Amino acid sequence: MAAREPAETPPRKPVGRILGVDPSLRGTGLGLIDQADTQPRPVHFEVVKCPAGWRRSRCLARIADATRDAIQRHAPEVCVVEGLFYAQNLQTALIMGEARGACLAAVAGAGLDIFELAPRRVKQAIVGYGAAGKHAVARMVQRLLALETLPPDDAADALALALVFAQEQKRLHLAAPRQV
Amino acid sequence: MAAREPAETPPRKPVGRILGVDPSLRGTGLGLIDQADTQPRPVHFEVVKCPAGWRRSRCLARIADATRDAIQRHAPEVCVVEGLFYAQNLQTALIMGEARGACLAAVAGAGLDIFELAPRRVKQAIVGYGAAGKHAVARMVQRLLALETLPPDDAADALALALVFAQEQKRLHLAAPRQV
Repeated sequence: MAAREPAETPPRKPVGRILGVDPSLRGTGLGLIDQADTQPRPVHFEVVKCPAGWRRSRCLARIADATRDAIQRHAPEVCVVEGLFYAQNLQTALIMGEARGACLAAVAGAGLDIFELAPRRVKQAIVGYGAAGKHAVARMVQRLLALETLPPDDAADALALALVFAQEQKRLHLAAPRQV
Repeated sequence: MAAREPAETPPRKPVGRILGVDPSLRGTGLGLIDQADTQPRPVHFEVVKCPAGWRRSRCLARIADATRDAIQRHAPEVCVVEGLFYAQNLQTALIMGEARGACLAAVAGAGLDIFELAPRRVKQAIVGYGAAGKHAVARMVQRLLALETLPPDDAADALALALVFAQEQKRLHLAAPRQV
């Protein structure tokens, strides 16, 4: 296997529209924000639901389709996904990997660059606490984007990735997101 | 996570053209055979190479593209992939999973049913020995398909999956391939 690619700085020119993705087999989160103005604005978010009765292959096709759809409709300029994360065992890692592969192949096929952010870093930036729970993240995302209702957890995670990427673009990049 | 779906018998009417896939980030094997006649015939095989210098996301897009291309050009009716397999650690399982997800999302998106066969079962059926090495598999695949030259290992693995699926279709299904 190839050695890890070195960390890279994100694009110099701040991008305006960011797609966060939180892939999982049964509930992939997609979240798009716009930061053309000083205040980030929500563009679209959804959870791509794949019922427990669906075969894995059907879920993978659905995840790829929904990702392509969202990109076509909302034209993001860059994508952010969770980096290293926790999996309970090899089987779980494999299934999580499959969902990521279906999603990221669609994103890369659309020509977007993809960056990774560690989950702890996202929670730290959003909630101020690296081990924050999903609900705390969702509430802060709701507040930061002035959403009327609480976003579903998986969509909130995707929006959180996009928000943190937007924040990091404005800073000196001491620890820039890694491109994958 | 959903409970495992029950094993299913493969399609009753034997399918004529079978796509075997052996996904991996740097060298995905694709192998198509035809079994319209009594003797299986090779239709196409290739290794989708993604150089070590390519980003993971670029590889995933390439794997999905190449899989879609092969399906469009050669119109297989069904797909076979390795089932449970060995991964050294979570990181490896995740990366293998990503390659599988990119490949299988393309296959399922094209409307093909996907079946899994355990690697040991494929080796047992092809070489007569469940722990056979890659080279032994490639040599037997060359012989069974009367290929003039030895196929590359990854392509041979994909062709072996297709060959074993073809064999199993002709038997009583005491242990039918599992649909995914």
